Amino acid sequence: MVKFALFGAGRIGALHAANIAASHPRANLAYVFDTNSVAAKSTAARYNAKVASSVEAVLGDPGVDAVLIASSTNTHVDLITASARAGKAILCEKPIDLDIDRVERCKSDIAGSGVPLQLAFNRRYDPSHRAVREAVRAGEIGALEMLVITSRDPGLPPVAYLEVSGGIFRDMTIHDFDMARFILGDDRIEDVFATGSVMVEKQLHRLGDVDTAMVAMRATSGALVHINNSRRAVYGYDQRIEAFGADGMVQSGNLRASTLTRSGATATDAREPLLNFFMERYRQAYLDELTDFIDVVDGKRQPAVGFEDGRCALILANAACESLRSGRSVRVRYD
Amino acid sequence: MVKFALFGAGRIGALHAANIAASHPRANLAYVFDTNSVAAKSTAARYNAKVASSVEAVLGDPGVDAVLIASSTNTHVDLITASARAGKAILCEKPIDLDIDRVERCKSDIAGSGVPLQLAFNRRYDPSHRAVREAVRAGEIGALEMLVITSRDPGLPPVAYLEVSGGIFRDMTIHDFDMARFILGDDRIEDVFATGSVMVEKQLHRLGDVDTAMVAMRATSGALVHINNSRRAVYGYDQRIEAFGADGMVQSGNLRASTLTRSGATATDAREPLLNFFMERYRQAYLDELTDFIDVVDGKRQPAVGFEDGRCALILANAACESLRSGRSVRVRYD
Amino acid sequence: MVKFALFGAGRIGALHAANIAASHPRANLAYVFDTNSVAAKSTAARYNAKVASSVEAVLGDPGVDAVLIASSTNTHVDLITASARAGKAILCEKPIDLDIDRVERCKSDIAGSGVPLQLAFNRRYDPSHRAVREAVRAGEIGALEMLVITSRDPGLPPVAYLEVSGGIFRDMTIHDFDMARFILGDDRIEDVFATGSVMVEKQLHRLGDVDTAMVAMRATSGALVHINNSRRAVYGYDQRIEAFGADGMVQSGNLRASTLTRSGATATDAREPLLNFFMERYRQAYLDELTDFIDVVDGKRQPAVGFEDGRCALILANAACESLRSGRSVRVRYD
Amino acid sequence: MVKFALFGAGRIGALHAANIAASHPRANLAYVFDTNSVAAKSTAARYNAKVASSVEAVLGDPGVDAVLIASSTNTHVDLITASARAGKAILCEKPIDLDIDRVERCKSDIAGSGVPLQLAFNRRYDPSHRAVREAVRAGEIGALEMLVITSRDPGLPPVAYLEVSGGIFRDMTIHDFDMARFILGDDRIEDVFATGSVMVEKQLHRLGDVDTAMVAMRATSGALVHINNSRRAVYGYDQRIEAFGADGMVQSGNLRASTLTRSGATATDAREPLLNFFMERYRQAYLDELTDFIDVVDGKRQPAVGFEDGRCALILANAACESLRSGRSVRVRYD
Repeated sequence: MVKFALFGAGRIGALHAANIAASHPRANLAYVFDTNSVAAKSTAARYNAKVASSVEAVLGDPGVDAVLIASSTNTHVDLITASARAGKAILCEKPIDLDIDRVERCKSDIAGSGVPLQLAFNRRYDPSHRAVREAVRAGEIGALEMLVITSRDPGLPPVAYLEVSGGIFRDMTIHDFDMARFILGDDRIEDVFATGSVMVEKQLHRLGDVDTAMVAMRATSGALVHINNSRRAVYGYDQRIEAFGADGMVQSGNLRASTLTRSGATATDAREPLLNFFMERYRQAYLDELTDFIDVVDGKRQPAVGFEDGRCALILANAACESLRSGRSVRVRYD
Repeated sequence: MVKFALFGAGRIGALHAANIAASHPRANLAYVFDTNSVAAKSTAARYNAKVASSVEAVLGDPGVDAVLIASSTNTHVDLITASARAGKAILCEKPIDLDIDRVERCKSDIAGSGVPLQLAFNRRYDPSHRAVREAVRAGEIGALEMLVITSRDPGLPPVAYLEVSGGIFRDMTIHDFDMARFILGDDRIEDVFATGSVMVEKQLHRLGDVDTAMVAMRATSGALVHINNSRRAVYGYDQRIEAFGADGMVQSGNLRASTLTRSGATATDAREPLLNFFMERYRQAYLDELTDFIDVVDGKRQPAVGFEDGRCALILANAACESLRSGRSVRVRYD
Repeated sequence: MVKFALFGAGRIGALHAANIAASHPRANLAYVFDTNSVAAKSTAARYNAKVASSVEAVLGDPGVDAVLIASSTNTHVDLITASARAGKAILCEKPIDLDIDRVERCKSDIAGSGVPLQLAFNRRYDPSHRAVREAVRAGEIGALEMLVITSRDPGLPPVAYLEVSGGIFRDMTIHDFDMARFILGDDRIEDVFATGSVMVEKQLHRLGDVDTAMVAMRATSGALVHINNSRRAVYGYDQRIEAFGADGMVQSGNLRASTLTRSGATATDAREPLLNFFMERYRQAYLDELTDFIDVVDGKRQPAVGFEDGRCALILANAACESLRSGRSVRVRYD
Repeated sequence: MVKFALFGAGRIGALHAANIAASHPRANLAYVFDTNSVAAKSTAARYNAKVASSVEAVLGDPGVDAVLIASSTNTHVDLITASARAGKAILCEKPIDLDIDRVERCKSDIAGSGVPLQLAFNRRYDPSHRAVREAVRAGEIGALEMLVITSRDPGLPPVAYLEVSGGIFRDMTIHDFDMARFILGDDRIEDVFATGSVMVEKQLHRLGDVDTAMVAMRATSGALVHINNSRRAVYGYDQRIEAFGADGMVQSGNLRASTLTRSGATATDAREPLLNFFMERYRQAYLDELTDFIDVVDGKRQPAVGFEDGRCALILANAACESLRSGRSVRVRYD
């Protein structure tokens, strides 16, 4: 049984709390900490956990095996560093930080701590996206030549969030950069081009951000990667991956609440809107991610997705930002 | 080049005229005959054919190679017999007749004429239904165990037509009986059960007919066959076949005008209504049927679907009528 | 928190034990009873429950709120009766019994006990099949005119099981009879015709049973129902419902482990085999069924599927048996 | 009846000859000209047309209404100019030429000729791609925000062809540039980025060409366009368009020979390989294109796709070439 402390009791924190406390037979929720004490109390009460008075109180309790960091992005680095020092296993929400310099510093700060750190790129655990990766790795489509990632949110977050989000590439596309790396395996992305537009929320002009974007990338092998993003798809949360290779193609598709189809006078075989939003679409993925992490804490395996994956995804996001600004393809430097 | 005379210039006759005269490089339309001389003139004029003054005039012209019989059902037997005597190759619309005794008499009347006769069970030429048959015959699904035929018209014909149609089993299901025989191959249907309801057109009560029907049949091998029919499917002309066997399943599906799919706030992946009606859905089948018949006239092959197929389909339809009346499964007698 | 005792620790009992003990926040597993004490011990140990020494020991414990009956069919009636007398809420696996006389006796024996009894027709809780029912009830397809139920198991159970199964209609089709009743709502099935064949397992001849079957039924409204069953579908557990009506059609389809599709030189858009078997296909349904029952025990609602549903499904199964024997459509008598 | 002369009796010329001579009731094939006299003779013989001794002989015959230019690309400009001078209506295969300067010269040379010229961007006539455009224009998806064009050939042409093809963007992607313009309507593409790799045929390195490519474009409205190309898709000719907008999404898909699906032990719902190649996939489009052109010749309408469309597509292809070389997004200049 792994005893968790949860940092952050917002929307994503609440989801993790439910998974730890109510859905996983090998996990326990010991503490909840949030600077918003109302949120902390509510989540703790629901799952019979304690409200932690401070980060130190949590990390000083030798009964805590692991921390789940789901607080706001700007707190991640400090919590990672402190947790690593305290010898707690770490499951941290993406991204590590919006600033690559802070990420690099964090990397050296925790070097040698020996603490397992798993980054919560939850989509890697989606059964359908995983099946794409496994088919590619098993050689089913021969050499991978093109990867097309469609990733569209059902709706914009509040502008207040967008202002601190770090921009679409670091906030939203970062998942797709990670998916590209996940499917590509050892094949490294070398060049990144990005373009984008403000089509949904005019205020993004003021922030220098976009809500509709396309990315074109090239890997060492010559494989090409396309990502397209929109912050608003009225038909739901659209999450598809298509891998094309010398011997064929595999695709993962969307999920609905049921398999129902409707046929009537104006349309046939119509399906339901897509599951909406990540909490529904990736429900199984969040659970499987937690199971994997518990295996890590139990020493059964190494983290499947670690600090370096978070760092590389941020490097790609930064390259996309630079490309959007310059109109040039950017050569990626990973070190 | 095969010279045709067309008997019957109604809806289905007009379709055949167009195929013979305008779409087929190896066919010519010489004559059109119809008791409705307006219809005859209009069709003849469109394709530069002559209006025939009588059946005899047509059959007496040694330049005519073949006749296409698309007149009303009650004229089929006489036209078949006369055409056979005149030595003309015959392509005849289904059914041969509604009365099995007349069919039997016709059979003996034309026996020994040596004239090729092809019955226009056009669905046998549909590329998708054919693909089902070919997969079954090639052993792809192992021994055939169940056959499920869905066959629904988009809308009711006029009541005036229904009154002379011979009832749903002889008029509409007869195509499905033929499809069942087509897929079953040498395996004979032995038992027929039918049930039905009046759900669409109340006047059918008066005619002792139904507009919604289900048939259950059993073949010598033990294979089971289901047919379901409706005279009115608001989403279009629904034509599907599912063949299930020891090693798998094959299915043929519906056609639309395009592959377009629509996704919006209330539905995703919605397709267009089905092609509607048989002239659109089986357009390719009608052409391929004609090509096949021209090969028959040219002596390149035997008719793929002949008098015996029309006779057997009617026997099955009669068994269904009897079963509907009696509530019993009817043992089929083919001789 | 509802305290359960489990009768029967076989395959389906183990599934229920897991749902009660490990997946449901409002349920507890107190006892496990099985005449096979090894199975009882193993299941009890896994979930920290007690092994009950006898049925009486369980029913005499006032701490037990509810029983889940998952033992062999011939024990159901006695356990229902005893549990009702002991005032325990009952969730009982289908069928109630194979003998309609025993079912009738049980009905009068428990009349007036006031104990809630829910029958485990789990498919009613499948999100896709439910969506069909809800669309029909909401009037989306207008008057229901035809219902087509495809229900094929991935493989035969052992012959030893088949010998005591009561035959395909009482053992397997009974679920489909219930689904038909579920979709039809207040519309009663009046006539049942059944046909079948031995296509998979020759030994069924000896048992007078079949492994491949088709049923045709007619309801009071005139709506027609088709069921087709096979004991062996090599591509997985095939579970589909199609409801056709005056204004359109709705269909529920199969589930796979993922949405992956494969395209290669010989096939395109190929999907994975179907989920196999009921424990995977109806996983969510079993959980939702349990939640519903817990609401019943908590007095929040009446059982959605009760004794009468089990009785009626058996009556339909018996009618199918009689029809198979007689070759006639059987008029159903419900009282 | 429109009398055609055909320039070029290669693969695509033969297709046009068949459509003109054998499939279209309003078209006649008068002449065939090809520098390869064997090809010219064979095509002419098949359709009872004359072999033309020279271009001049064709253009000097006042009985010729229209020319269809399907000869090699480097002859297009001269034939267009001469035909325009001779007052013949022109249906010309894409591209106009590989050299934009020659295209500009041709444009001024034929200015004022008053002769209708239609460019054979056949995909504009595909019923499914057209349906995408019509849905977009009808406002079904609101403002168009993203366009994703997948366009993959089943296999590489011979290296000898590749050497004179003008490279993938001018030879293959040019169709997709036109499709993007077709869907975008009045919205102009302003920026073009292209990347590519040699994944299929090593000899392309020598030619400075690629066989696997991705293009990212931005239109005046902010709409983003992605194109992906491969010269070799083992599962067939992959041609899909996805238009995403503020109110939804429409997609056009691929065609197969039939609707057959197969389910077996290892895969379910598998469809047949895609139609392969453009002669099959776009068969209906070629016919509809011809009908449209005949209407143009008959003065019933203006060409739906003209010289300017060919010129703009080449400008976009040139921009892609430049971008591939420079690694920069290229601002498009149309004048």
